[in-house]
Amino acid sequence: MKTLKFGLIGTGFMGKAHAIALKAAPGVFSLPAIPVCELLADVDEAAAARKATELGFARSTGDWRMLVQDPDVDVVDICAPNFLHKEMALAAIAAGKHVYAEKPLALSATDAAEMVAAAESVGVRTLVGFNYIRNSATQLAREIIASGEIGELVHFRGRHNEDYLADPASPLDWHTRRTTAGSGALGDLGSHILNMAEYLTGQRVEEVFGQLQTVTTRRPLADGSGGFGTVENDDHAQALLRFDSGLIGNIETSRIATGRKMGLAYTVTGTRGSLVFDQERMSELQLYTSEGPEGRRGFRTLLIGPEHPDYAAFSPAPGHGLGYNDQKIIEIRDLVEGIVSGHPLYPDFREAWRVNRMIDAIETSHAEGRWIRI
Amino acid sequence: MKTLKFGLIGTGFMGKAHAIALKAAPGVFSLPAIPVCELLADVDEAAAARKATELGFARSTGDWRMLVQDPDVDVVDICAPNFLHKEMALAAIAAGKHVYAEKPLALSATDAAEMVAAAESVGVRTLVGFNYIRNSATQLAREIIASGEIGELVHFRGRHNEDYLADPASPLDWHTRRTTAGSGALGDLGSHILNMAEYLTGQRVEEVFGQLQTVTTRRPLADGSGGFGTVENDDHAQALLRFDSGLIGNIETSRIATGRKMGLAYTVTGTRGSLVFDQERMSELQLYTSEGPEGRRGFRTLLIGPEHPDYAAFSPAPGHGLGYNDQKIIEIRDLVEGIVSGHPLYPDFREAWRVNRMIDAIETSHAEGRWIRI
Amino acid sequence: MKTLKFGLIGTGFMGKAHAIALKAAPGVFSLPAIPVCELLADVDEAAAARKATELGFARSTGDWRMLVQDPDVDVVDICAPNFLHKEMALAAIAAGKHVYAEKPLALSATDAAEMVAAAESVGVRTLVGFNYIRNSATQLAREIIASGEIGELVHFRGRHNEDYLADPASPLDWHTRRTTAGSGALGDLGSHILNMAEYLTGQRVEEVFGQLQTVTTRRPLADGSGGFGTVENDDHAQALLRFDSGLIGNIETSRIATGRKMGLAYTVTGTRGSLVFDQERMSELQLYTSEGPEGRRGFRTLLIGPEHPDYAAFSPAPGHGLGYNDQKIIEIRDLVEGIVSGHPLYPDFREAWRVNRMIDAIETSHAEGRWIRI
Amino acid sequence: MKTLKFGLIGTGFMGKAHAIALKAAPGVFSLPAIPVCELLADVDEAAAARKATELGFARSTGDWRMLVQDPDVDVVDICAPNFLHKEMALAAIAAGKHVYAEKPLALSATDAAEMVAAAESVGVRTLVGFNYIRNSATQLAREIIASGEIGELVHFRGRHNEDYLADPASPLDWHTRRTTAGSGALGDLGSHILNMAEYLTGQRVEEVFGQLQTVTTRRPLADGSGGFGTVENDDHAQALLRFDSGLIGNIETSRIATGRKMGLAYTVTGTRGSLVFDQERMSELQLYTSEGPEGRRGFRTLLIGPEHPDYAAFSPAPGHGLGYNDQKIIEIRDLVEGIVSGHPLYPDFREAWRVNRMIDAIETSHAEGRWIRI
Repeated sequence: MKTLKFGLIGTGFMGKAHAIALKAAPGVFSLPAIPVCELLADVDEAAAARKATELGFARSTGDWRMLVQDPDVDVVDICAPNFLHKEMALAAIAAGKHVYAEKPLALSATDAAEMVAAAESVGVRTLVGFNYIRNSATQLAREIIASGEIGELVHFRGRHNEDYLADPASPLDWHTRRTTAGSGALGDLGSHILNMAEYLTGQRVEEVFGQLQTVTTRRPLADGSGGFGTVENDDHAQALLRFDSGLIGNIETSRIATGRKMGLAYTVTGTRGSLVFDQERMSELQLYTSEGPEGRRGFRTLLIGPEHPDYAAFSPAPGHGLGYNDQKIIEIRDLVEGIVSGHPLYPDFREAWRVNRMIDAIETSHAEGRWIRI
Repeated sequence: MKTLKFGLIGTGFMGKAHAIALKAAPGVFSLPAIPVCELLADVDEAAAARKATELGFARSTGDWRMLVQDPDVDVVDICAPNFLHKEMALAAIAAGKHVYAEKPLALSATDAAEMVAAAESVGVRTLVGFNYIRNSATQLAREIIASGEIGELVHFRGRHNEDYLADPASPLDWHTRRTTAGSGALGDLGSHILNMAEYLTGQRVEEVFGQLQTVTTRRPLADGSGGFGTVENDDHAQALLRFDSGLIGNIETSRIATGRKMGLAYTVTGTRGSLVFDQERMSELQLYTSEGPEGRRGFRTLLIGPEHPDYAAFSPAPGHGLGYNDQKIIEIRDLVEGIVSGHPLYPDFREAWRVNRMIDAIETSHAEGRWIRI
Repeated sequence: MKTLKFGLIGTGFMGKAHAIALKAAPGVFSLPAIPVCELLADVDEAAAARKATELGFARSTGDWRMLVQDPDVDVVDICAPNFLHKEMALAAIAAGKHVYAEKPLALSATDAAEMVAAAESVGVRTLVGFNYIRNSATQLAREIIASGEIGELVHFRGRHNEDYLADPASPLDWHTRRTTAGSGALGDLGSHILNMAEYLTGQRVEEVFGQLQTVTTRRPLADGSGGFGTVENDDHAQALLRFDSGLIGNIETSRIATGRKMGLAYTVTGTRGSLVFDQERMSELQLYTSEGPEGRRGFRTLLIGPEHPDYAAFSPAPGHGLGYNDQKIIEIRDLVEGIVSGHPLYPDFREAWRVNRMIDAIETSHAEGRWIRI
Repeated sequence: MKTLKFGLIGTGFMGKAHAIALKAAPGVFSLPAIPVCELLADVDEAAAARKATELGFARSTGDWRMLVQDPDVDVVDICAPNFLHKEMALAAIAAGKHVYAEKPLALSATDAAEMVAAAESVGVRTLVGFNYIRNSATQLAREIIASGEIGELVHFRGRHNEDYLADPASPLDWHTRRTTAGSGALGDLGSHILNMAEYLTGQRVEEVFGQLQTVTTRRPLADGSGGFGTVENDDHAQALLRFDSGLIGNIETSRIATGRKMGLAYTVTGTRGSLVFDQERMSELQLYTSEGPEGRRGFRTLLIGPEHPDYAAFSPAPGHGLGYNDQKIIEIRDLVEGIVSGHPLYPDFREAWRVNRMIDAIETSHAEGRWIRI
């Protein structure tokens, strides 16, 4: 059986999610190659070794530069902090490796552009982990929209709100620093909903008008010294959108949305129907259509089942529910199939670059108080 | 028992809602004066007579100018189409009558300003029918916000979306003409959510950035001729907001939001909690607070009951539910008490004028592509 | 205009609800006779007088026996405690008055049978206030079931749970005494869901198997003496049902269902669809049908609107919501129309007697541990 | 690293779910032994071989008797149809293997008793796959109940309803035959909710009163001959329960509950709070407590997060959602830990035997029309 060997950089939240999915994917899908957990890197060599055992990697290293050079690594999987994506990806590309990176691709559109150019000139395959678009319910939403079931689109509303920094007493960390995170909620969470807006509608965002705000401008230092430091990026942001077809919409993103844990949600309105989705109820999609007698119309709850994209591989029985990690399993399937078949991967670096351009445009719009074209 | 005699102009949807509430209010509340259905006006004299019997008015007339002059009318209640509000209100004020008018107050801020000046110079009392702010759940939301239970506000999101013109084949009518309606969804529905934004937060909207769109630019003529005419105002609109405290937010309004029947909804986020409300479930309010252990936090559904504003007058038992007309009964109570006591009425013409100014500012912003101060 | 003069006995919760509805009904519906609030009785003569002013009754009395004899009273409206229903109704019937009584009709089936016999021999009209069956959403449910839209019925599940005695420290009151209330939750709340079971299905409950329980067997005396007394009836009850068609189902009722405020709810399952309703969201009905492609099926939320029974009289706009008191307004409409037209009233004393028989059968079944036929 | 070698019998729905979980578990949890997919059996030898490749098993066989004897198999994992459980389990036990079996354990309590005796005399470890009790939200429910947070329990309501045979035209299959399935919905789905009732409450069901019904008594033969055959077991069932503490409750189960896909749901009511759960929204639990001011009480939606049982191993971020297969991963963790540590496994054969006894008692009760003790 053909294999595809993964070198994973990073052992945090996303590193573990990738490891789980790499192991689970072949049980769920019939893959053209079996992903192998080959090499795990972490800055802390001992931690890397311990985590390698825990997560089931064959080898470990304390030096990511060794990993990207390792001849037994086919795919470099970057789950390190955002500000390291560029350097790692460029090194991996230079070594001729395929690159699977977490989002956002880069801290700025300029950096992202450089990464796109490198990947395309070398010809390696790339995929960026906007995993929420793999969710069965969201794939279904795209299908329904593309099929015309809800008519012509007239409005898109999206948000990705969480509350991990809602408490003003939460200390400064890498999220709050420009050099490590770039923008704040906008890059961390907003990137998902901006990508989602284009994925769902099948249209391009052409113009944005943005507003950002840092609500808690100073936070305690994480060192416990009792001192305070400055928050360098946005706590939340909102933007009006105009797509290339003329469709309008808006997005919101926040890391201080008290009560929201996984608040990616969208409402897509068409001339003959509407869709409403909330990732906190990730296995259901609300659909309204203007069909049948008026007195029998209403938003209906579609529970995801085997008729819907990718669900049947997990269970033949409807309504049994997918979880967060299942999205990553689907992503791994797409990655493996794409690499083996040579078919396009979505979203690749070029597509993820668009997200960085939208983020930058929203920031520019905020600064200049005017619409900005992407 | 003291009475307050009402002269009602208009026998349509809102005319009937006012009539129902005028009759029901004294059964629900102990009022300082009993509202009396004295005189009903409609352009069609026969219809006025028939409706007067139906709705329980003592007398009727085909001429609203007679009504505003009638010595036995204490309050002129204007439920006629929006474009007539100004002329009727000015005549009523000139005759020294108190004026109770439906929203939006006027087709433009300039007209509204004239009405405010007239009312204030004569000294009559005025109230504008933004009835959704009377709903027990929404009064509760305001109470919770004002008490600081959810901390400092960090974000306001509101919408008032319906779908009465979602079908592109729906014909032109008074809603779609500039001269009869002024703006489209923005004036008809957006006026509610703009007023709500200030009511709930207790803050003033200071700056807006707006975007309007007419999605269906041509619609069939209502005469059945097969011809088409031009839609003259917005099908939907959205705006970013900045309040005087620095709070930011956004609003949406639409008459083409397929599937939404009574889609007034808001989410108010604070540093220590959040509120979520949807008028389609008008007797419940979702409250999240950052209290207690993390594992026991969640949005809770408060069913409106006797502990909440104005509910006990309708029922001593919790969760039994209020309806749309009950909001109007509360509005009538406020009107009668305000007139008899001389206490301030909210929202009076001056307050409703603000709504017209916000509407105009959103239109200007759209035209000029920049933030506009109110 | 023809009138119908009401003599109302009782000034508590239900008395006020009746008064509100009597006043509001002619504004909502075109009635063949105007209900008039003629005479109000309360054991406390002063309270009767004060309440008469408040609720808008022309006259008052401290003696309900005078009221039932009063020549100017056409309809005796009984909102007094349950144990008085029989005596009052028999007196009213003897005086030739129509009788409108709150539920449950009587403390036992034997008493109810006597009341039925009296009313039928004299020929007066009767109506019992099972108001929840008037709710527009529930009328719609019956329509959908009767039309065959959800196929043949296969199961009925109903409950009416509240929590007014959930706190074990709540004192003894009339609810907890056999002589004043008869059964406990079963009579007070279960009566609604038993009536609902037959109303919705259009079938007769033929056999029941019941289980009752008094969870808090002793409660504080209401006199504040610090003493305790015995609770004499059920805190909650549940029963299995067999209808005459062979349909099976179950009901639950409770006054100690912590968290439930207005927990009347039902699920009706058919071979081709299902309905789910919860009175806490009284203006919506969930409908599932086995139509269309499998991947597009789901429970849909029907928001009550003008296409549905009786809604249009309250509002021409869909989704605006009805409240508890609106059910009573519909009940008054049915009462007035029935009396004027001579058409059947539902549920009349005979029908309400069935409910008492079901209650008694559930108690007998509990005592004997076997199925009991109605 | 220590391993535990699995021999899996059955390649259908549950076989695949087990395979996915066996592979994924070591990525999610730090296990004391790594489960190894050693040997896969299916009656069809070729299918076994193909599936072994697909699901990642080292070897395959067409003869389950070989599997249970295989010296390299530590645990026999039985995902074959219910009627084979007994024979397979007895053979595996005789071979000294630990047994992990799907539910229901057996077709009757008598068979189950024999299996318990065999396992206990040999001393092998057993676990039965009532996987829904592993769901994080349900583990949380048990924790809340056990801690006394909702006071003394007063009522349990549970159901497990699906609609896989709702269509009367669905043909006969193994579910509908007594010899292959034993009871119908009651054994297939009701077994889950009966186990759940004891798991959640920590109490024993002592007495049941049951009612079963076969709604569609004849169904088409599966051979496409156009002929019809008899359905031999229940389409749905309901029962009243009495627990050993005196607590009462009821359960429902159905395979014809049109619209329900994964309708395992429960409501547990206590003197100071209540819990409501629905597996169709498996990552949330509704909690009501009688704490704080009355006007701030309501059912709150707890989104499962890292503070709750077993969630953190899947994700450090709250609200990201678990899926059906994640329950099986937790079950595998419990199985591996239990076998390695020697600690008790729940529910083992003895515990699952109770479920069979409850099922049999419900059938007996139905036949005899009286309460039956377990």
